[in-house]
Formats: sequence, C-alpha cells, structure tokens
Amino acid sequence: MKKILNHPDDFVDESISGILLAHSNFLTPVEGEPRAIIRKDAPVQGKVAIATGGGYGHLPVFLGYVGEGMADGVSVGNVFTSPSADAMFEVTKAIDGGAGVLYLYGNYFGDKMNFDYAAELAADEGIRVETVRVSDDVASAPFESKDKRRGVAGLFFVYKIAGACAEAGASLDEVKRVAEQALESVRTMGVGLAPCIIPASGKPTFEIGADEVELGIGIHGEPGIQKQQLATANEIIAQLLEHLVSDLNVKSGDEVCVLVNGTGSTPLEELYIAYKEVHEWLAKKGIQIYRPFVGEYATSLEMAGLSLSLLKMNDSLKPFMDAPARTPFIRL
Amino acid sequence: MKKILNHPDDFVDESISGILLAHSNFLTPVEGEPRAIIRKDAPVQGKVAIATGGGYGHLPVFLGYVGEGMADGVSVGNVFTSPSADAMFEVTKAIDGGAGVLYLYGNYFGDKMNFDYAAELAADEGIRVETVRVSDDVASAPFESKDKRRGVAGLFFVYKIAGACAEAGASLDEVKRVAEQALESVRTMGVGLAPCIIPASGKPTFEIGADEVELGIGIHGEPGIQKQQLATANEIIAQLLEHLVSDLNVKSGDEVCVLVNGTGSTPLEELYIAYKEVHEWLAKKGIQIYRPFVGEYATSLEMAGLSLSLLKMNDSLKPFMDAPARTPFIRL
Repeated sequence: MKKILNHPDDFVDESISGILLAHSNFLTPVEGEPRAIIRKDAPVQGKVAIATGGGYGHLPVFLGYVGEGMADGVSVGNVFTSPSADAMFEVTKAIDGGAGVLYLYGNYFGDKMNFDYAAELAADEGIRVETVRVSDDVASAPFESKDKRRGVAGLFFVYKIAGACAEAGASLDEVKRVAEQALESVRTMGVGLAPCIIPASGKPTFEIGADEVELGIGIHGEPGIQKQQLATANEIIAQLLEHLVSDLNVKSGDEVCVLVNGTGSTPLEELYIAYKEVHEWLAKKGIQIYRPFVGEYATSLEMAGLSLSLLKMNDSLKPFMDAPARTPFIRL
Repeated sequence: MKKILNHPDDFVDESISGILLAHSNFLTPVEGEPRAIIRKDAPVQGKVAIATGGGYGHLPVFLGYVGEGMADGVSVGNVFTSPSADAMFEVTKAIDGGAGVLYLYGNYFGDKMNFDYAAELAADEGIRVETVRVSDDVASAPFESKDKRRGVAGLFFVYKIAGACAEAGASLDEVKRVAEQALESVRTMGVGLAPCIIPASGKPTFEIGADEVELGIGIHGEPGIQKQQLATANEIIAQLLEHLVSDLNVKSGDEVCVLVNGTGSTPLEELYIAYKEVHEWLAKKGIQIYRPFVGEYATSLEMAGLSLSLLKMNDSLKPFMDAPARTPFIRL
C-alpha cells in the first residue's frame, strides 16, 4: 500500500486536522467532538441549517461542502463508514439557528440509522429536524424502487440548490421541498477503471481486469450493471447518457446541468474529453446545457473512473444554481 | 493503457475542445490557431499581457491559469512537449493591449527555444516582449546553478503575483521585476510514488519499486535526488522542507505561503495529512504561514505523489497574493 500517511489508524483524524489547520478561517470543530465540524460563523440566527455527514474518503464530499451557500455542518466517519449519531447530534445543536435543521446526506443504511437516531435526540432538545436522503445512482436500483438507490455525486447539486434556498431565508418546509425537487431532478451513473485501497485494510475495493471497466460502479466499489471491455470515451459516455436521459425523462428542448466528476485519479485532461462527448451527444438530441461542472466533486480516494450527473433544470431551480457558494473546497 | 479517451492522437485536441466547450464564456481560441487560447476579453487595452505555454498534461498548468488576475493567453503543445513558436506568436499578437507582453513559463529547453523565436517575431511586429522563466525545482540543479533548474508547481505563485501586478496597471518593466522577485522567493520539491502513462506512447514516465518513492522527481518523471523506501508522511515532509528551507534561506520569524500540490492521483485526503505535517514542522521552527494552498495546481496526468512549494513573503508581495484571480480552474 503506497500512500502518503503516517499510520492507517490515524488517516482520518490527521487528514481532518490538516483541513482544520489550513482552513481555520472557515471551519471549526465542535468542542469535545473532533468529528463534528461546522461553519465558523454557525449558528446563523434565523437561517435553516443544513447538516450532512458520511464516511471519509470522498472529498470534497462531505466535509468540503460545509460553507456559505451549502451545508452548515458535517459529521465525519472513518473511511467509507458512517459517523456516529453522537457526532451528528453535536453538529445539529451547534448549527441550529432557531429555524430548524435539514439532514441532507447519501442514502446508505448506516447513515440513515444514525441520522434517524440523532433526529430523535434533537427532537428531545426541541430542535426540529427534517430529512432528505439523496439517492441519485441509477445503476444501484431500478426506477420502480428508486428510493433504494445510493447517493453519489449528485449530492453536489442537491447541496447547491438546498444550500442557496436556505441562505435566501426560506423556511425548513420550503428548503426541504426544494431539496426534494432537486433530488427528483438529478441522476448519476459512474464507470470504474481501477479501485482505491482502503488505508485500514490495505485492500482494493473491487477487482477488475486490465482491459475491463465496471459500468455503474458505486463510490465504495459496489458492483454496477456489468463489467465490460474498455471502450472509447465516445462509447462510454453514450452508454451513461442513455441510462440517465431515459431514467430522468429528458427530452429535446429540456435544459440540464452537467457534472463530469472524477473519482480520484482520473486526469482532468480525460474528464474534459468526456465532457466534449457529453456536450456533443446532448447537442445532437436538442438538449441544452444550462451549466457544466468538470472536476472532482465526489471521489473514492484514488479510484480511477468518472461519474456523470444530469440535473434537469426548471425556472425555479435556476436562481438557486446561480447563487454564490463558498467553502474551502468549492467556490461558485 | 486504461484511459478515458478516443484515440491517443486526438488526446490533446479533444481535451482542449472540451475545455473550450465548457468555458466558452472565459476562453477562446485564436482564429485559425486552435493551440493558441486567450482570455475572452483579450486584448485588455493598456494592460501588460502575460503569455504562457508548455506541454499538455499538467492541468491546471498551463491553460488553467488563463483568466483575470493571472495569464492572458497560452500556447499548448502535445503531451509533455513544447508548443510551436507560431502558436506563441499568435497568442502574443492576440493579447497585446499596447503595453507589452511578459513571457512567463517553465524553464525547459524546447519552450525557451520556441518562446525566444516568438519574441523575435513579435519584435518585428513592434510588440515589446520580456521573459521570465520559472526555475523553482531545487532537486533539478544545485543552488550555484539555479538558473538551470526546471519550472514546476511554483509557477502558480509566480502567475498569481505577476498576474495581479499586471492587472493593477503596472508597466512591463515593473511586472517583470515583480515576477523575478516572486521567482527569487519560491522553491519547490516533489516526491513521486507512481508514474503516469503518456497516451501517445502507452509507456510509463519512470520505473519505481513497489515500496519505493523518488525524492525530487520532475513533472515529466525526470530523475530526482534519490530513490528511497516509502517513509511516513512526517518523514517525507521533513525531508522536503529541509531542502526548501535551506535553499530559500527561510528563518524563524519569516512568513511563507505554502503549496501542497497533488501530481494527479494523490487523494486530497493524503495532501491534507501532508499539510498537517508542513504546518507543524514550520511552527516548530517559528516560521509563519501567510496563506496555505492544498490541491492540484500542477499535475502530471495520473502520476502519484506530491510537491511542496514555499514562497517567502514580504510586504510588497502580499497585496498581489491577496488580489482576486478568476480562471475556469482557479478562483481566489
């Protein structure tokens, strides 16, 4: 295992420590709870607060989305492991500005269990909590049971929309409604070329042949739709888009935001080749691109591959997409 | 070779095409010269223009630094290969706003030859050109012959400082003087864990053992100071800092900007572990951090490793460091 670290057991804590040292003007841990990190200016009085959280190893997901116009606080687990309900509860108390808290996170069993328990603890303290679980990965379950899908890079779009809505002063019910609208409008599918290695185990997250890719892979190496021969960028992007456009029911004349997301070790140069293919494929179908995003928005350590997300736009989402956002990792 | 591309011969052109499609509001190619890319608002009348360029495969170096407060135009070569003097000359003509042009690029033989020839062509057209070649890689030549050193991630700091100086309305002589001051104040050293593969050849840039790292590696896989056993983040960072601090003559009470740069496939999580080590090492020596940067600022496709740059600060550099900058890849 060739990684820049000290000891695998300290991987998460030392990495968070580096983030807090580098960005102490933006982020602060909750006292006594180093895995609960909040905006430096939290709680923002009168604003709906957004709490997120999940396993480590997906930067900028989740910690990187804490900042103005996005999330207010995050609980951080070990690599690919849910954080504790205690950390979630500490975040909740620290960010509540009196207008309630939205729990916004990816749809995984451990996270759901712990966030649900934290919500009970919060209710006992008189803090109103609502929940939206992002489930954008079309490869992880069929349309008929889309509530069972995993949450992947589409999280970015839901943070962006819900965060802007909260920043604009909307009520908790309204922020939840808008987050659900964003969730209904987003789909993601990925392709994996090579696994990452989890520091604590020293093991790769999946096995794959030298000339194979895994279509529909999850961000922890969960199996996708199929293993297949490595194809051209043109062919891979067409496969992903056919699934996304069909599932999201995007048609000629529609507008979408596009996210070409690198999963960790994919060069930006390759992501832009992929973006060119996306742009040309959508143009041929008469689908307009409202705004493109290309880069690393949800990673799996050094996993090689990419994911493609589409967010179907409408006039009510545009002001939230266009609003500024500023975290140590994302500036829009 | 497992990459997301169509044909290796089209790698650069298709990737640039994706960048121009995604960022057409910021960037435009010079007519008839697709490898000459300029700011959309170029030429900015009365402003000193900054031209850069070099081989492809180092994003955001070089193309990613074209934008407000940084460079005005770029000529793009094939992967790890100098662009043509023609492309450089086309950039020069397209960005000159009447106040002259600074050529600011990394110290490599091919780039020097072509930029020098482009400067002659520009002189024939009555455009004044001055040149600053960045040579920040301490591992590539001893202090006594530091003009022979290669240009690596420290380019970022020189773009930032010189770009802000030009944006503030300084003369060509003044922008050159400030760029040279930044160059005198910056040092970089890298460590390589695994090579990248050049698309056209399908070959890795260097050979390395499963438990080895190469200290002082160049951004094209040029040999460094030594191959050594993989050590802890703490030990690697101490090695790099000892070289940098000695070469730059940084002492207790001095202030530096820090850049922990990922070379392509290094997870951000590891870069922040490295940053923690940098922060603690410098604190012990009484060296203050003026501003930290952690992320991918100069890559080598999917090479694994990192580089560490220090910029010794003084009061005259601070306003240039703090000025805003905005490109499709960098927002400060």
